[in-house]
Amino acid sequence: MRITDVRAGLDRDAEGAGMYQTVRELYPFCRSITGDGLRQTLRTVQRHIPLEVREVPSGTEVLDWTVPNEWNIRDGYIANSRGERVVDFQRSNLHVVNYSVPVRARMGLAELKSHLHTLPDAPDWVPYRTSYYRETWGFCLSHRQLAALPEDEYEVCIDSTLQPGHLSYGEYYLAGATPDEVLISCHACHPSLANDKLSGITLAMTLAARLRECSLHYSYRFLFIPGTIGSITWLAQNEGRVDRVKHGMVLACVGDRGPFTYKKSRRGTAEIDRAVAHVLRERGEDHRIEEFSPYGYDERQFCSPGFNLPVGCFMRTPHGQYPQYHTSADNLELVSPDALAGSLETCLSVLEVLEGNARYMSQNPKGEPQLGRRGLYRSMGGYAQGGVDELSLLWVLNLSDGDHSILDISIRSGRPFSAIRRAAELLTDHGLLKELPR
Amino acid sequence: MRITDVRAGLDRDAEGAGMYQTVRELYPFCRSITGDGLRQTLRTVQRHIPLEVREVPSGTEVLDWTVPNEWNIRDGYIANSRGERVVDFQRSNLHVVNYSVPVRARMGLAELKSHLHTLPDAPDWVPYRTSYYRETWGFCLSHRQLAALPEDEYEVCIDSTLQPGHLSYGEYYLAGATPDEVLISCHACHPSLANDKLSGITLAMTLAARLRECSLHYSYRFLFIPGTIGSITWLAQNEGRVDRVKHGMVLACVGDRGPFTYKKSRRGTAEIDRAVAHVLRERGEDHRIEEFSPYGYDERQFCSPGFNLPVGCFMRTPHGQYPQYHTSADNLELVSPDALAGSLETCLSVLEVLEGNARYMSQNPKGEPQLGRRGLYRSMGGYAQGGVDELSLLWVLNLSDGDHSILDISIRSGRPFSAIRRAAELLTDHGLLKELPR
Amino acid sequence: MRITDVRAGLDRDAEGAGMYQTVRELYPFCRSITGDGLRQTLRTVQRHIPLEVREVPSGTEVLDWTVPNEWNIRDGYIANSRGERVVDFQRSNLHVVNYSVPVRARMGLAELKSHLHTLPDAPDWVPYRTSYYRETWGFCLSHRQLAALPEDEYEVCIDSTLQPGHLSYGEYYLAGATPDEVLISCHACHPSLANDKLSGITLAMTLAARLRECSLHYSYRFLFIPGTIGSITWLAQNEGRVDRVKHGMVLACVGDRGPFTYKKSRRGTAEIDRAVAHVLRERGEDHRIEEFSPYGYDERQFCSPGFNLPVGCFMRTPHGQYPQYHTSADNLELVSPDALAGSLETCLSVLEVLEGNARYMSQNPKGEPQLGRRGLYRSMGGYAQGGVDELSLLWVLNLSDGDHSILDISIRSGRPFSAIRRAAELLTDHGLLKELPR
Repeated sequence: MRITDVRAGLDRDAEGAGMYQTVRELYPFCRSITGDGLRQTLRTVQRHIPLEVREVPSGTEVLDWTVPNEWNIRDGYIANSRGERVVDFQRSNLHVVNYSVPVRARMGLAELKSHLHTLPDAPDWVPYRTSYYRETWGFCLSHRQLAALPEDEYEVCIDSTLQPGHLSYGEYYLAGATPDEVLISCHACHPSLANDKLSGITLAMTLAARLRECSLHYSYRFLFIPGTIGSITWLAQNEGRVDRVKHGMVLACVGDRGPFTYKKSRRGTAEIDRAVAHVLRERGEDHRIEEFSPYGYDERQFCSPGFNLPVGCFMRTPHGQYPQYHTSADNLELVSPDALAGSLETCLSVLEVLEGNARYMSQNPKGEPQLGRRGLYRSMGGYAQGGVDELSLLWVLNLSDGDHSILDISIRSGRPFSAIRRAAELLTDHGLLKELPR
Repeated sequence: MRITDVRAGLDRDAEGAGMYQTVRELYPFCRSITGDGLRQTLRTVQRHIPLEVREVPSGTEVLDWTVPNEWNIRDGYIANSRGERVVDFQRSNLHVVNYSVPVRARMGLAELKSHLHTLPDAPDWVPYRTSYYRETWGFCLSHRQLAALPEDEYEVCIDSTLQPGHLSYGEYYLAGATPDEVLISCHACHPSLANDKLSGITLAMTLAARLRECSLHYSYRFLFIPGTIGSITWLAQNEGRVDRVKHGMVLACVGDRGPFTYKKSRRGTAEIDRAVAHVLRERGEDHRIEEFSPYGYDERQFCSPGFNLPVGCFMRTPHGQYPQYHTSADNLELVSPDALAGSLETCLSVLEVLEGNARYMSQNPKGEPQLGRRGLYRSMGGYAQGGVDELSLLWVLNLSDGDHSILDISIRSGRPFSAIRRAAELLTDHGLLKELPR
Repeated sequence: MRITDVRAGLDRDAEGAGMYQTVRELYPFCRSITGDGLRQTLRTVQRHIPLEVREVPSGTEVLDWTVPNEWNIRDGYIANSRGERVVDFQRSNLHVVNYSVPVRARMGLAELKSHLHTLPDAPDWVPYRTSYYRETWGFCLSHRQLAALPEDEYEVCIDSTLQPGHLSYGEYYLAGATPDEVLISCHACHPSLANDKLSGITLAMTLAARLRECSLHYSYRFLFIPGTIGSITWLAQNEGRVDRVKHGMVLACVGDRGPFTYKKSRRGTAEIDRAVAHVLRERGEDHRIEEFSPYGYDERQFCSPGFNLPVGCFMRTPHGQYPQYHTSADNLELVSPDALAGSLETCLSVLEVLEGNARYMSQNPKGEPQLGRRGLYRSMGGYAQGGVDELSLLWVLNLSDGDHSILDISIRSGRPFSAIRRAAELLTDHGLLKELPR
């Protein structure tokens, strides 16, 4: 089976429902850049694809960085003088600043406030805060709750550990016909944030599951890694092998209802950049193509000048451009089954273009070959065998000079990628083209 | 005499009238891709220019194709049971499907209808249909007539022959100072269609006649050939010599009253592409420049990837974009003497650019030369000797570094090609420039 | 001190007042392309900067030209039969056609008129006319005055000399760290025309004075030369050394209140072209960028094909595009202290870009370096030490691959040049970048 068939046979409703269910399942875990919440997430993914989980010891030097101590948390709360938990980690893992050091203390409201984070402009939402590389502790709560906190003596408790351990990440390698790789990467480090991260994990996992059913030209590598330190670690461990990556995408924020946004790789004209732009254009929906910038997700690391990999970032509404970003409102209501399914379908279309984007050499480059005697010509316009239109045949014949790929011909002719590819295959069957090695 | 002088001395009214007379003379002949109607057309052209007529035997292998049997027709009709001809080849050669095999039969209306072609959307017009490579027969008539045909027993007769013979085409070579060639090609295969083909034959013939009066830099080759199989045949017979073609145009649909359309060569930035675009821009009239596509006239063959010649297509309203195309309404009323003369004038301007598009090297490249002491400067603006303006002189001096042709300088400066060329010639006369070998 | 500091510390009011005072001081002198008015001007400039004055003998061959005889004038008038001076050089040096040969004669109005120049469309203004290379004489006056001149016998007197002497020009060389030069050139040849020429002299002089206070990467060469023949002479005398000029600007018409106009060098994409465009864009004011054309000021000579130096022309309203151009209305009211100060500030910004436009190589190109442990990161956005924003740091790190200069990074990121440069310096201080030799 080819990706084309998988995409064409997609049951969008069923896929969307399944993906949404995965997001819902992953939602409660308290993930961070290390620790058991992250491992629990990787184990969930393993139920769908044979993910290998790697454990890298704290203190390992990775490029300019060092793998940090492992963080785990059992409980955390602020209780008032009557012993009532007014802020409680058990209700939402966002309430404790991620990577907070352990604390157990009593203090008045004034002192407590210096450890509290709110969003005055969105007074009902709880913010998401982290402090990975500076040892501190804190709580996050709604601004409305903060305003209502009475003068009191409060008990604060964060029952966490921050100790030498491991950084965990998941890697799944799916071998294709060539060792040339397509890299698909997502962040597995954020706690209860549905669009920003869980949607990406789910999309990567589902893509991997679907691709396992296909015969593939490229090999595919899926990474489920913590942000920044995860990609830094993977790059450090694979420094000599990254030139196998011929195309790649970071997946993030793919579950909300916004239009697609693609941020180009640093190269700007890489095949992945042209392929995604072409697929989004062919879909005919509103979408946005952004130039590369060194801010965002792990494309920052993959596109650092020493690697400069052809890796872009595929999103719906980008980080920071929807108000719920990094708050408790990035929840299960923000993402939708339909949006998840649409993201899956679009990514499959992109991979379909990468897989099918061969170059051909005309075996009959002087003058047009006589299509009529091969049954490839319908004199009054229209379609030849296999639903291939005559104009697509003529475009492929005219541009199959070794310099133009199927994507190039599709862009130049303004005809659908799939029509151009079918025309090339039909002409190859008739001995009029030969596919060139990639 | 130079092309410039021919163009400047053109009597548009007289030229238009003469060209229109040629279209009128050629109109009744029943041309096809082979046969006596084609030969009759070439003989008419021979009355104006010393065309060589080539005869290529049926069955000759030409690239991927084979020269077909020769088709000739004497008569053709549908008669009703009272013996009245209701459809008659003698009234219009469009009535018989071109390349129809001989037939003589009697049949009812139902059976007859399967051989009849009409245009329901243009019920008064007779369509033009061919069946070169599939043996069949048929008649074309107006939809209104078809609707009125009563039930009857009809006699059908097509008195044609389809037998081994020859494919005929005309070639006229006009030698210039260099063996580098400009190729001018037109279709001589269509029957009574005035704009689509007869206008092109007439323009090519008139251009050739005018160029014979000129001293020329390039050599010119004019082809009067049947569509597709004609250019395939010529290319097959001249395969080793086509690299002499430095510029070329296919001429078609140049007699209607629409604005000019130029379809670029496959190269897209060939000198002919830039020259035509510049001439059309300078004329200041509405016009259209189209990118190359592998559909249209014989530029399809000249621009196949194995040849990739710099040949574009010069038209007024392109094929398929005027309603009368390939119908009986593409008649003598559709073309006008003025449109034909305008096409001639514009083509002469294009050839003028090609002929004059030399590169020069400044003999005084450091600082401006002192124009004043050479009488080339008028301090208060205005014109020096020979009607050359100072700004054109300065542009030519500044850009004559060997990298810029007269056309390049004209485009960059926004000044007329003729002004730039005159400036270059004047500066050459004063020893300030030297023309470079092309 | 760096140019940045000079620009930042600029007292615009004081600078504008000082520059305006210089224009006022230079205004009355009767300059021409040779002679004492020119020398007087150069001496005035010498009071501000240690200008070297060069004297080139009449008759010296310079490229295609010859240094003309020296012109000087003491007096000139038209007197009526009552002995009253109706046109008087003592009132305005524009009244005598520049380079008029001596004359002393009596004549009627009709004969006199053939020597009179006016502006019928601006009847109150006196035109500026010259006749450098054709020996003649004449007077300029307002059209209104001409119309009112009664029939009379007039006495005309031009007390001038046109004899072998010298062409004078001023040159000031300011050595920087490298022998690579920035050329700043202005015309010192026009008489009482405030915007067209005096503003340029004043700006060049003030720039030179300010740059003397700076430590400089480039060496700077300031030329105060007569138009055309001056640059031809300088180029002839420095023919073998001009390749030291890496960037340059001709300054003219920089005192009026119009928006800035920059005319690009012939190269079109030289660093100076990109630097000026970027500075004007960053200023956010209305401005215009013009393509090179071989008409205008001395960039015509510097950009002749045999030299092709990267020299553009920096102006406010270009020559010929303001009605007062080359008339008595190009006077002290047309220029303003504020406009002069703005021109100074903008030119300093341009030179700041040239000086600071280094390329750097990241010392940590694989993955991002960990900014946090170096104190270069503020987790919640905002600014690190030295007022450098995090995004500028990330852009510099990402693009410091040896291919991108600070200007390139500023253009691509859309961040201010100064922010990008500060980021690069800060990163260099932390050992994360190394500056490449230019």
